Amino acid sequence: MKYTIAIIPGDGIGPEVTTQAKKALDAVAEVYDHIFLYKEAQMGACAIEKTGDPLPQETIDICKNADAVLCGAIGELKYDNDPTLKVRPEQGLLRLRQELELFCNVRPVKAYPKLLKNSPLKKEIISGTDILIYRELTSGIYFGKKEISEDGLSASDVCSYTVDEISRITHLAFKAAQDRKKKVTLIDKANVLATSRLWRKTVAKIGEEYPDVALDFMFIDNAAMQIVLNPTRFDVILTENLFGDVISDVACVIGGSIGILASSSVGGKNALFEPIHGSYPQAAGKDIANPLASILSAGLMLEHLGLHDEADAIQRAVEKSLDLGITTQDLKGKNQYSASTAKVGDFIADYIANQE
Amino acid sequence: MKYTIAIIPGDGIGPEVTTQAKKALDAVAEVYDHIFLYKEAQMGACAIEKTGDPLPQETIDICKNADAVLCGAIGELKYDNDPTLKVRPEQGLLRLRQELELFCNVRPVKAYPKLLKNSPLKKEIISGTDILIYRELTSGIYFGKKEISEDGLSASDVCSYTVDEISRITHLAFKAAQDRKKKVTLIDKANVLATSRLWRKTVAKIGEEYPDVALDFMFIDNAAMQIVLNPTRFDVILTENLFGDVISDVACVIGGSIGILASSSVGGKNALFEPIHGSYPQAAGKDIANPLASILSAGLMLEHLGLHDEADAIQRAVEKSLDLGITTQDLKGKNQYSASTAKVGDFIADYIANQE
Ligand SMILES: [Mg+2]
Ligand SMILES: [Mg+2]
Repeated sequence: MKYTIAIIPGDGIGPEVTTQAKKALDAVAEVYDHIFLYKEAQMGACAIEKTGDPLPQETIDICKNADAVLCGAIGELKYDNDPTLKVRPEQGLLRLRQELELFCNVRPVKAYPKLLKNSPLKKEIISGTDILIYRELTSGIYFGKKEISEDGLSASDVCSYTVDEISRITHLAFKAAQDRKKKVTLIDKANVLATSRLWRKTVAKIGEEYPDVALDFMFIDNAAMQIVLNPTRFDVILTENLFGDVISDVACVIGGSIGILASSSVGGKNALFEPIHGSYPQAAGKDIANPLASILSAGLMLEHLGLHDEADAIQRAVEKSLDLGITTQDLKGKNQYSASTAKVGDFIADYIANQE
Repeated sequence: MKYTIAIIPGDGIGPEVTTQAKKALDAVAEVYDHIFLYKEAQMGACAIEKTGDPLPQETIDICKNADAVLCGAIGELKYDNDPTLKVRPEQGLLRLRQELELFCNVRPVKAYPKLLKNSPLKKEIISGTDILIYRELTSGIYFGKKEISEDGLSASDVCSYTVDEISRITHLAFKAAQDRKKKVTLIDKANVLATSRLWRKTVAKIGEEYPDVALDFMFIDNAAMQIVLNPTRFDVILTENLFGDVISDVACVIGGSIGILASSSVGGKNALFEPIHGSYPQAAGKDIANPLASILSAGLMLEHLGLHDEADAIQRAVEKSLDLGITTQDLKGKNQYSASTAKVGDFIADYIANQE
């Protein structure tokens, strides 16, 4: 099959980690007989330098016409150090998410055996963890009306949700659970919040359409504790925007490293795949950045395109590199051998190409 | 000195753990030459049985006229199993908090050496943790306007805060930090929420009145991760209602057991002290309930009354019981010796009485 992939290398370490992800994709194309047509697009600080706009119209067009978007990382020191600058690299990503109507953020959380030791949590607690977090991304309190009184003595934020907003992500979560351990946990605060009660009612009703999937409910405060106390009890987590922001960051610690965490943002027509980590400009060009999160983002993209075997091949290759310790320095103890960014990418591509 | 203490034994294990807390208080009174005048009051299921009301007016009066309120635990199986009952034990506690205008919830989080092994977190991560969480308790999204549209297709919750609401708890947090490691961390989401920006502005301004205390800021999503990753970086945490609900439950896992966690709820005139744990009716009357959270609640109460040495005496006695393993079965491995509720209470009281 032929797929058009928009590639946004971005800033800092973005271009070098994206290059490794492309190596992995090329190996997949070779083995599974696909054609990946890469369309490179500019976004972030690099786009500001060239065009004055962190998200040029050309980038939007390329992304809208692609089968999927793979993004490196966005952000540059110059902007971090000067918060008064009005045009900022991150605006590019936020606007792109709006343009593509990406309403659902998906974050896989996995405890890799070789990285158990890097987590603040005990091995016996996290071992076997495999969670998929579905977070609503375009509504809730982050996007509600914000007010400050004229005298500056009070302020308010509104959290609102509609049944439509809840329904579209709920279906995605249930469908994902069907391919997994068939369990969805809705995280809310239905004992207090009206929006949470709407979530609970809507999700329970939609759940009836998926009789093979078990549904349970958990309050956000308890959930934030349970994900640390007993993470293996979760399969698919479904939640609103703010709760998802918090719970996915707590869950980060299970993987033992932010350098391996990938995410996808999905809309009705488009989808964007990117690492959790930032652009880490201090490391740019040094061939030391960890490319695994970018490579796993490419894997999520293949999964999204329905290429399950191909996604598995990337997953297996990443696990092999972890098992063999062919990883960058951030995953290593002091004085341990570490591989360069390019070497890790080469290993992954070779392994995919030769694993049969 | 003479102090009037309202004692609300409550339901389930409430009466027996409160009895142990009174033993500790009696020992303190003896050693430090105080008089604690206990006024017993009914609240919860036991109050419903006797009066039909979970919070009789007499209880409100006793509490308002006392120097402090010590509460056991509220709740009974009969009500848990029948959510349709309209008069419920928990309403007593919620109404009492309103009557006493308790706007600030304080939760100490401590990693006791002997309980490190009970935490899901690694010893080297939590060892030395000593945090005080100040959570605003009467405003924010839990108390804001709630709406469901007539067609049932949308819902909203309003989060609002005033400078006054923020100021009164902020002063308490800074004052507490002055007696500790002199650091306050405000947890908010000021990059997105108007209420968070009001918190940040107000707290920063008040912070100038406490030049000996360092102030920093952290977003709630990052904070929920950092409290697991690096809990020893925190001293006093200050935050709004919902964020405090979440962060204090995540922080629970540091102590290794919910059976030792005490809390206080403070208002302008009154203050209430109680364990985090519930009434655990299944264990009532069996002399197996862990009394440490209730005893530590009494310790917090003494601290609040300005009796610092006396509070320290309770703290030391509790630590001694943990060190010697004179604890109830919930803190033990299988087949390990455990002490009864009364025996733990006796040990604590004896230790306080004889520690000089
Ligand atoms: Mg976040
Ligand atoms: Mg809670």
